Amino acid sequence: MRSVSIIGIGETRLGKLAEYSLSDMIKEAGGKAIEDAGLEAKDIQAAYIGNFNGSYLNNQSHLSAMVTETLGFGTIPVTRTEAACASGGEALRQGFIGILSGLYDIVLVGDVEKMTHQSTGFVTAAVASAMDYEKEAMEGITFPACFAMIANRYFYEYRNVKKEMAMCAVNAHHNGCLNPDAQMQKEITIEKVMDADLIASPLSLYDCSLVTDGAVFAVLAATEIAEKISKKRIVEIVGSGHSGDKLTLYNKKNITTFSATLAAAKEAYSQAGLQPDDIDFAEVHDCFTITQIINTEDLGFFEKGKGGDAVSDGTIAIDGKKPINPSGGLKAKGHAIGATGISQIFELVTQIRGDAAARQVKKSDIGIAHNLGGSAGTCVVHILKGR
Amino acid sequence: MRSVSIIGIGETRLGKLAEYSLSDMIKEAGGKAIEDAGLEAKDIQAAYIGNFNGSYLNNQSHLSAMVTETLGFGTIPVTRTEAACASGGEALRQGFIGILSGLYDIVLVGDVEKMTHQSTGFVTAAVASAMDYEKEAMEGITFPACFAMIANRYFYEYRNVKKEMAMCAVNAHHNGCLNPDAQMQKEITIEKVMDADLIASPLSLYDCSLVTDGAVFAVLAATEIAEKISKKRIVEIVGSGHSGDKLTLYNKKNITTFSATLAAAKEAYSQAGLQPDDIDFAEVHDCFTITQIINTEDLGFFEKGKGGDAVSDGTIAIDGKKPINPSGGLKAKGHAIGATGISQIFELVTQIRGDAAARQVKKSDIGIAHNLGGSAGTCVVHILKGR
Repeated sequence: MRSVSIIGIGETRLGKLAEYSLSDMIKEAGGKAIEDAGLEAKDIQAAYIGNFNGSYLNNQSHLSAMVTETLGFGTIPVTRTEAACASGGEALRQGFIGILSGLYDIVLVGDVEKMTHQSTGFVTAAVASAMDYEKEAMEGITFPACFAMIANRYFYEYRNVKKEMAMCAVNAHHNGCLNPDAQMQKEITIEKVMDADLIASPLSLYDCSLVTDGAVFAVLAATEIAEKISKKRIVEIVGSGHSGDKLTLYNKKNITTFSATLAAAKEAYSQAGLQPDDIDFAEVHDCFTITQIINTEDLGFFEKGKGGDAVSDGTIAIDGKKPINPSGGLKAKGHAIGATGISQIFELVTQIRGDAAARQVKKSDIGIAHNLGGSAGTCVVHILKGR
Repeated sequence: MRSVSIIGIGETRLGKLAEYSLSDMIKEAGGKAIEDAGLEAKDIQAAYIGNFNGSYLNNQSHLSAMVTETLGFGTIPVTRTEAACASGGEALRQGFIGILSGLYDIVLVGDVEKMTHQSTGFVTAAVASAMDYEKEAMEGITFPACFAMIANRYFYEYRNVKKEMAMCAVNAHHNGCLNPDAQMQKEITIEKVMDADLIASPLSLYDCSLVTDGAVFAVLAATEIAEKISKKRIVEIVGSGHSGDKLTLYNKKNITTFSATLAAAKEAYSQAGLQPDDIDFAEVHDCFTITQIINTEDLGFFEKGKGGDAVSDGTIAIDGKKPINPSGGLKAKGHAIGATGISQIFELVTQIRGDAAARQVKKSDIGIAHNLGGSAGTCVVHILKGR
């Protein structure tokens, strides 16, 4: 199999970017990534753009052609991917496959989402399209309700981790304060999380990720070419996994272990020839704090039911044995839905290059990114390794 | 480069399918394609689903997971692509690349759209998201207006082909009557088209394609595997081209020749080692009658400005020298937006197998499918050849 590496990254600040249009965000983040790779637009042979719901939130579909126009791409092929919150991860996966196929050598992958200009109700409706609209959303279920059911079931099968979930939020806010691009720039306490208003029991306000605008891009190249042209540390994609599962939550056999994560992680670990213990640090999809705990178990870092312990004993902290979400994650860096997959990749590359400054993890040669769509109907996992 | 073939096809009837949900359409068309290939769900290793705007029209995003749940796919990777009216063509293109990459051997590609349940105004808004919403749609431009400007410019640069455009519609309706899956099942006359109400001058009612529901799927396999398992005539993808262009119409240098078509066709012809004269018949993207004429010129079948002559002299008829849209095309088979790309492939495979009954073209070994997105911001071209 052909080796593929990442040679450039670029992102907007994540947050409320009222002054940016979708194309403004694409221009800034895409431009930064191409520049970071030491390339120009003419060097890009194909592009993939992940976006969840511009069609509804911005009345804007056909983002591939917007990427072409904004970045000055002539007639190269550009493809939009969408898989709810895993739209960005899928863009990376397809870019990776494009280079594997031999059709392309240098590919831009990116993702973008603009949400904060809409009302909370409008955003809730937009996000609900990531579940089965007829069988779930129309019955009144929202995503906080889905993940509240998952949390309650986890409490029943294993133990109550409400306090450890709060610690996830505290850790995320702390890391976010160290990330200049993060939306959330304030520390919180366990007490504040535990005392916050309930959204859907047992999830309270600080158990939920954010509504965010942002765009993140990365330049991929066949490694043999990357070695010739890259002036920075080359970051190889040593494992790529992509799996699906049923759309509806009620039809899943198990809701405290996500089948899509297990399958995608298996593919990625197998390609990489690595085990969970070999991973130095991770960005995992913490759409809710309970999801972070489940994901770290499903990725094989901790035994089922023990993910909470790794939070309370400091294992997941930036200076812990297995740092989780040093970027601040979806909880504090922000969750620009479709733009989350490559936002995770941005952090992995930044850490592996040793450029993460105040949030730099100690050992950062091998990182994993875990991107989940909807109530785990899609999962994309990538393992990156510095060369 | 690895050879990829099509070994199964399936589609719903196109039209007003009020009794079908999105998942009903996926189930019927996807199930038929898998059965037509002589396979079962467990044999499919990956899938791609093209959909334009379920997010807005049906409040349903994340169709990949719906495909997984509906067709019983376990945890295989499923990816949604979107490129306006070329969403289906992109699904095929990505499925093709997936097999080229060596990651997959057998891939299901499909597309689906459900539109007719919404009001005309709602559909117009949904479709307008395929242009630049801020710079075009918000200024009051609709797609009929875009293509009316294109037609007027064509009249200015070459000659007035209003009558030949009408003949395109007559030809499409005639062919549609021979296709049991086509939405439009009535013959029309040149006079009827010429006298119809204007939509955007010079386009009248019958110059415009239809609002349609439908789903179409195809099973792809590496040709070396297709040869072992297929009991029907194997249809090889001998050329695949995918190109982009600017999203906005006003920024395009030339609007009577589509750069995206030229580039995608060049890639496809080059891969296939074929010339336009080698193509026996074609399905081209006739979202409007003028588009059909321009497309047949851009594909190299006729000189620029001469596409109208090929309509009036009968060249494009089913029994002509270069049959165009024997299925009835977007004009009469129907234009279920995101589901058009693979609908064209369904017709090519049906013709190449010799299964097109009353609409069978005489020479049908090599066909080309041309799928356009928006005002030519995306183009996907595939050349299929019977083995």
